[in-house]
Amino acid sequence: MGTLGIRTVGKVSFGTPASEQPGLHNRWHPDIPFAGTIKDGETVKIECLDWTGGQILNTDDADDVKNVDLTKVHYLSGPFEVETAAPGDLLLVEIMDVQPFQGQPWGFTGIFDRGNGGGFLDEIYPSAAKAIWDFEGIFCSSRHIPHVKFAGLIHPGILGCAPSAEVLETWNTREAKLITANKLEDRDVALPPQPINVHAGSADATLKEKIGKEGARTIPGRPEHGGNCDIKNLSRGSKVYLPVYVAGAKFSVGDLHFSQGDGEISFCGAIEMAGIITINFKVIKNGMAALGLKSPIYIPGLVEPQFGPGRYIYFEGFSVDQHGKQHYMDVTVAYRQTSLRCIEYLRRFGYSDYQIYLLLSCAPIQGHVAGIVDIPNACTTMGLPMDIFDFDISPTAALALTDGKTLDMGSCAFETGVTEGKVTNGGENSETSFGGGLTYKE
Amino acid sequence: MGTLGIRTVGKVSFGTPASEQPGLHNRWHPDIPFAGTIKDGETVKIECLDWTGGQILNTDDADDVKNVDLTKVHYLSGPFEVETAAPGDLLLVEIMDVQPFQGQPWGFTGIFDRGNGGGFLDEIYPSAAKAIWDFEGIFCSSRHIPHVKFAGLIHPGILGCAPSAEVLETWNTREAKLITANKLEDRDVALPPQPINVHAGSADATLKEKIGKEGARTIPGRPEHGGNCDIKNLSRGSKVYLPVYVAGAKFSVGDLHFSQGDGEISFCGAIEMAGIITINFKVIKNGMAALGLKSPIYIPGLVEPQFGPGRYIYFEGFSVDQHGKQHYMDVTVAYRQTSLRCIEYLRRFGYSDYQIYLLLSCAPIQGHVAGIVDIPNACTTMGLPMDIFDFDISPTAALALTDGKTLDMGSCAFETGVTEGKVTNGGENSETSFGGGLTYKE
Amino acid sequence: MGTLGIRTVGKVSFGTPASEQPGLHNRWHPDIPFAGTIKDGETVKIECLDWTGGQILNTDDADDVKNVDLTKVHYLSGPFEVETAAPGDLLLVEIMDVQPFQGQPWGFTGIFDRGNGGGFLDEIYPSAAKAIWDFEGIFCSSRHIPHVKFAGLIHPGILGCAPSAEVLETWNTREAKLITANKLEDRDVALPPQPINVHAGSADATLKEKIGKEGARTIPGRPEHGGNCDIKNLSRGSKVYLPVYVAGAKFSVGDLHFSQGDGEISFCGAIEMAGIITINFKVIKNGMAALGLKSPIYIPGLVEPQFGPGRYIYFEGFSVDQHGKQHYMDVTVAYRQTSLRCIEYLRRFGYSDYQIYLLLSCAPIQGHVAGIVDIPNACTTMGLPMDIFDFDISPTAALALTDGKTLDMGSCAFETGVTEGKVTNGGENSETSFGGGLTYKE
Amino acid sequence: MGTLGIRTVGKVSFGTPASEQPGLHNRWHPDIPFAGTIKDGETVKIECLDWTGGQILNTDDADDVKNVDLTKVHYLSGPFEVETAAPGDLLLVEIMDVQPFQGQPWGFTGIFDRGNGGGFLDEIYPSAAKAIWDFEGIFCSSRHIPHVKFAGLIHPGILGCAPSAEVLETWNTREAKLITANKLEDRDVALPPQPINVHAGSADATLKEKIGKEGARTIPGRPEHGGNCDIKNLSRGSKVYLPVYVAGAKFSVGDLHFSQGDGEISFCGAIEMAGIITINFKVIKNGMAALGLKSPIYIPGLVEPQFGPGRYIYFEGFSVDQHGKQHYMDVTVAYRQTSLRCIEYLRRFGYSDYQIYLLLSCAPIQGHVAGIVDIPNACTTMGLPMDIFDFDISPTAALALTDGKTLDMGSCAFETGVTEGKVTNGGENSETSFGGGLTYKE
Repeated sequence: MGTLGIRTVGKVSFGTPASEQPGLHNRWHPDIPFAGTIKDGETVKIECLDWTGGQILNTDDADDVKNVDLTKVHYLSGPFEVETAAPGDLLLVEIMDVQPFQGQPWGFTGIFDRGNGGGFLDEIYPSAAKAIWDFEGIFCSSRHIPHVKFAGLIHPGILGCAPSAEVLETWNTREAKLITANKLEDRDVALPPQPINVHAGSADATLKEKIGKEGARTIPGRPEHGGNCDIKNLSRGSKVYLPVYVAGAKFSVGDLHFSQGDGEISFCGAIEMAGIITINFKVIKNGMAALGLKSPIYIPGLVEPQFGPGRYIYFEGFSVDQHGKQHYMDVTVAYRQTSLRCIEYLRRFGYSDYQIYLLLSCAPIQGHVAGIVDIPNACTTMGLPMDIFDFDISPTAALALTDGKTLDMGSCAFETGVTEGKVTNGGENSETSFGGGLTYKE
Repeated sequence: MGTLGIRTVGKVSFGTPASEQPGLHNRWHPDIPFAGTIKDGETVKIECLDWTGGQILNTDDADDVKNVDLTKVHYLSGPFEVETAAPGDLLLVEIMDVQPFQGQPWGFTGIFDRGNGGGFLDEIYPSAAKAIWDFEGIFCSSRHIPHVKFAGLIHPGILGCAPSAEVLETWNTREAKLITANKLEDRDVALPPQPINVHAGSADATLKEKIGKEGARTIPGRPEHGGNCDIKNLSRGSKVYLPVYVAGAKFSVGDLHFSQGDGEISFCGAIEMAGIITINFKVIKNGMAALGLKSPIYIPGLVEPQFGPGRYIYFEGFSVDQHGKQHYMDVTVAYRQTSLRCIEYLRRFGYSDYQIYLLLSCAPIQGHVAGIVDIPNACTTMGLPMDIFDFDISPTAALALTDGKTLDMGSCAFETGVTEGKVTNGGENSETSFGGGLTYKE
Repeated sequence: MGTLGIRTVGKVSFGTPASEQPGLHNRWHPDIPFAGTIKDGETVKIECLDWTGGQILNTDDADDVKNVDLTKVHYLSGPFEVETAAPGDLLLVEIMDVQPFQGQPWGFTGIFDRGNGGGFLDEIYPSAAKAIWDFEGIFCSSRHIPHVKFAGLIHPGILGCAPSAEVLETWNTREAKLITANKLEDRDVALPPQPINVHAGSADATLKEKIGKEGARTIPGRPEHGGNCDIKNLSRGSKVYLPVYVAGAKFSVGDLHFSQGDGEISFCGAIEMAGIITINFKVIKNGMAALGLKSPIYIPGLVEPQFGPGRYIYFEGFSVDQHGKQHYMDVTVAYRQTSLRCIEYLRRFGYSDYQIYLLLSCAPIQGHVAGIVDIPNACTTMGLPMDIFDFDISPTAALALTDGKTLDMGSCAFETGVTEGKVTNGGENSETSFGGGLTYKE
Repeated sequence: MGTLGIRTVGKVSFGTPASEQPGLHNRWHPDIPFAGTIKDGETVKIECLDWTGGQILNTDDADDVKNVDLTKVHYLSGPFEVETAAPGDLLLVEIMDVQPFQGQPWGFTGIFDRGNGGGFLDEIYPSAAKAIWDFEGIFCSSRHIPHVKFAGLIHPGILGCAPSAEVLETWNTREAKLITANKLEDRDVALPPQPINVHAGSADATLKEKIGKEGARTIPGRPEHGGNCDIKNLSRGSKVYLPVYVAGAKFSVGDLHFSQGDGEISFCGAIEMAGIITINFKVIKNGMAALGLKSPIYIPGLVEPQFGPGRYIYFEGFSVDQHGKQHYMDVTVAYRQTSLRCIEYLRRFGYSDYQIYLLLSCAPIQGHVAGIVDIPNACTTMGLPMDIFDFDISPTAALALTDGKTLDMGSCAFETGVTEGKVTNGGENSETSFGGGLTYKE
């Protein structure tokens, strides 16, 4: 054997601000200096902070969520040099394991305030809220959402290789056009490079300034390299084929999730955590052309939680919004409606809407495109696993409910002094609001 | 036991035109006469024609698909009276089985001509095309898409109860507003009531005329009752909870699919077939209020084909269209891109784009919403099961391919005299085209 | 396409005694005349009677089970000539479908009287009993075992190719030695050729006499060809590789099961039915040597019911029998104990032991070898799927039970005039009884 | 939250001999002093040595396996007091996680020499052999069995509560009777208490002497408490209901397995490892009577590796041994034959029999009882997952093999100076040998 154990190529500290740790960065840019080197074929461990770099605390209020500074995110570990990788290659990344830190067995799910981040349902649920999750082995549970326990489908929300200068330029141009063309009154449509709170690893001041001006924000995933794709099944055992655009690949990873539902709907919606990811790296020379890949592909791991198809309740939603407006083939609208159907259903058991919104964001919810061709209605479905609850949520049980029989569901965390999140009419008077792609003004 | 066997409450004929069969209809309307009666608790068989009523033939050209008359569709079986069902109830529909007719062991998948129906990818693939599928027991295969065989995840594309007059009025008003507000140059955005080729079961001429003027088209699913939801997993063993709006429920079913992929992307995209569905019906009195349902919910059956998660290749797509245009959180765009990524991948093995487009429409493809909150990019994934192919399509195999080594993949069916479908640039010069909800002119 | 539909190569009649139908037989012998011919590569349908040839009726008494004539079983369909098959080849048999007859949607599970057939637990449960199962699509339920419904894992109990004269001689010699060496007081240890009620298809009297003298009984599966292997997962979509010993293969099939548990413990333990099996046949020339097969192998189909691992209760059993006697590494004893543990558990919910014995025989019970090396105790496990019951059988529910709260479980069928099956002490005074391999006298 | 992280109630040392660590023991006895205390409802971590207490090394010879001292095994962690537990209660043990030590990412699988331990196939494969497995996250691979990699179905081989004095007396009497009645020439049939190398935790010399005389060996599982049941699916997320016989339960656990096949056929057959198990404990007062349990039951966890049923090759075996002798309904014989069929199959790809024997012992092989009622042949099946190999082992691939085309399979570890394990004729001349329960002399 020789030496036992797997080398840790990237380390983080809980005592030092994320912004001061040289192995972290929060922008995508080809010039961020390497944080370490990995051999072709090697398996290494990489430590990661949570995506906010520690802004969110294990507490019972949501002040930290409400006031989160989104110019600082995401703190990624890397970029790492993978030896021999060159532009045009593919990097085959096999996720051997993801684990929380032993001494940090907890994570958080947040709903951002509509004025600071927002989320998929923010017109209806505009308040900040939070749930803290405790980990015990493969399971998690929350004092803020009682009577729920489930095994984590643990995964990185973000992984990818650095863009080349050309790819970066494409991103910035493309997103700038969107921003120029679409001014929404109440929300950003994209986030251009922003030279505030830039962290570029070990870059010196000059380079850091450049990166601040040019570096792409980490919020969106992007087709060329993946990035923040937030794919819940990209879990242990998955193999991802990542395009390489710069010499040495400059691979970064972060935004670890103990669990996430399809859509990650509350934005800070996974069970966000710090942790350690173990990855095997292989370089496939000239793989981009050989496979003709324009975006990453992946093969899932085979240790996903298995509930059995008959242990899900599936909700259907269509592209008619909550104001009764018909949208044209808009899957975004349909999926929002599907989420609302699920909230309405679970509400009967005593949970608050905010608790359910948090839960659907982070539990292993299956979100499917069902029909996408039957004009004008796209149809999507959302599968809720019944076995994550410690009581019966089946329709049969729901029909047997009488008003006084629900369990004590406690409360999720809100802003200090607030005991219940606001629920609005969904922006009923606003023609421009709450659509998917369609409804904002051009 | 008493009598053996299950009663067939609805029969169809292959010798009589669909439009002349009194147990069929092709509009949603509360006044279509009952086609039969079912007891609360009863299990019955219902025969169904294919959705086009037999317009598509088991041939090797796609002329029938190109010239399909879409004013005639869908031919549904029903409406059936379910005894004791009343407005406000839920109808619990358990799908005990779906089978093709013994003497009709085949089905079809079609790509409609862009000028007559179109489909999800019609700007790039505007030609009509067709694949015929032969059934052998639980499996299907096609002479038009060689080297593929899979077990059907057999299901009805459409099932639902009739709308009340009020619900129907809501539909017509809602969709008319969309039509008025959005005039697209090259495509319908919705289909208003159209008094052509109306079939209203055993309605007399006066009633039929009324239904023609008011009756909702069957193409879209709608949130209030489900209808054409095209959910591939609504297969054998599934239990669906359907809202009831009229006395006796007036349940209809049709559009049987031997198999379908998530999205049914080519529109005539499932393996469309005639067949027999066996259903158990139970009335849940006042169930709509008791469960608070605004749309149907369902619990899947437990006999779905199991490939194992590690036997899928997942493709990622983002809301940047093929012209490089950035869309805002548009899942429709993202899912189209995901489909294109899969086409590009499979193309390497020798299939034509049209063959793959057909295959992704009808094979058990998993379409997931992945991330829906990372502005401006929605991310969706499409899972392609490797084991439906009789050769290795893994990335490893793809990398090992050399140009001369692909199998003979034959051809799907095209219009007479055509040997290859057109592939366009995707409407590159058209600002209005090919978007999801976003990009058409208001 | 040409002709539509699949050819039926073997037909049965319900109006004619099984013993008079030329396409059936009930012995294994190389000389039984061909009942039809199948091309290499062809898919055909084969009709089958139930294994007893119709001796068991859809009634509410078990007189037919008690008095079953076991010299007549099993009635198999065949033998069929598969063109080009020759000794040394393998026959690749793909099970495309198995279905009950439309007009015979029922089956039976029987417990044989200890004096006429017996079963795995006959020392404790010596009485004849029966449950009739009604089929509705993919599901079955029984008026004799209420509150249970499950999807069939439908399969043939028996399939195989005819032995050559040499193989047959091996069987007869081998089993004769066992009979000679081991005389049990109360039961047969094997069944030698028996010229009573022989059915040899279309054989003439002379040949029939020969077959009666030499032909192997169909009760046991045998390593050389498979035969009555009773593998519950050999269901739709399975591919079996069968050794060929005679020219044309002489393939036979029968003993169709709508469902079976691992072990088929009550002997007549599956849900026995008449039905139609659809099979594709391929000849693999010289396959026996090429694969080095001494016994059949198979690859299961992928449409098995999926309960999810967490929806099973697993019972453990060890090779200590119910008299407290320690056996040496005897998996047979361990599996019997495991079965008894499950009976004891389910008994709490109001079922009679005979009902549970029937249920464990036919429901999709998972029977596993756990540990087989820890002297002196073999350990086996039996997994009971909770979701086949329409009430909660979990340990949590069992702990919450109070005596008066069980459901009305009715009764299974017994001999006329009998309302409850006998339960013995398990042969406590008998040294020779109830062992697996170990305990009978040599 | 309070304190973060889970308390470790039992620690082990790698620097101190196992026999000197007070929190370990290697006999079952009610008087072994408590090694720690756990609250009802608490989740704790328990560290475990491998079952041999470190006798087997990470080397390339099997001398350590050949010379293993089996009087020392198994070193279990405990016994732990669970507060409030009393005789007649059940202890509900939920396995929250099992992990190897970070610094010890390896395990071993051994074949014991026939003269020192032996195993299920020792008459044919009498030599000692070993494979070392390296862990990388959820996966393992071995330099001694190349071209294999799989995810661990990680679990404890042993867990249980201490016997009362009465239960212990039952065990000793029962097993002594077996030993007295059955003297085999060449092997032990059971292991009586043996006062050699006894380790009784912190017991003083007097108590230790008593425990040595009376204490039950840990090799066999036993029905009353479970113990060494070696159930491969008792993995993460499983809930086990364990009978309690003494005040405080005296729970012990050990024999951690990174993976195991059904049967654990080579005896030292799992991937044996040291590691840490995280368990939640709950006491169910008077649960034994309430559930009527005579042996433990369990509900599996839901994160098992999923291969899909169609990705297994299943081998069939019958109770006819390799000498052609017919055994009566002997599942032990049948399962041995099934194992041999699998060895014969895999041998074609270049593996040695010893490599395969090791692999079948430790990989996630499914061992099923198929038919157990068709006299005289029991039938068992063994499912081999194809996807643990990095090359194609399907029958199609096997048929395509030509002699020179196999991969370099290297070698497993043997005794120093030995390059190939002995293969015998299986004891062909020995009437007494190699049976299951049946064939040894009484």
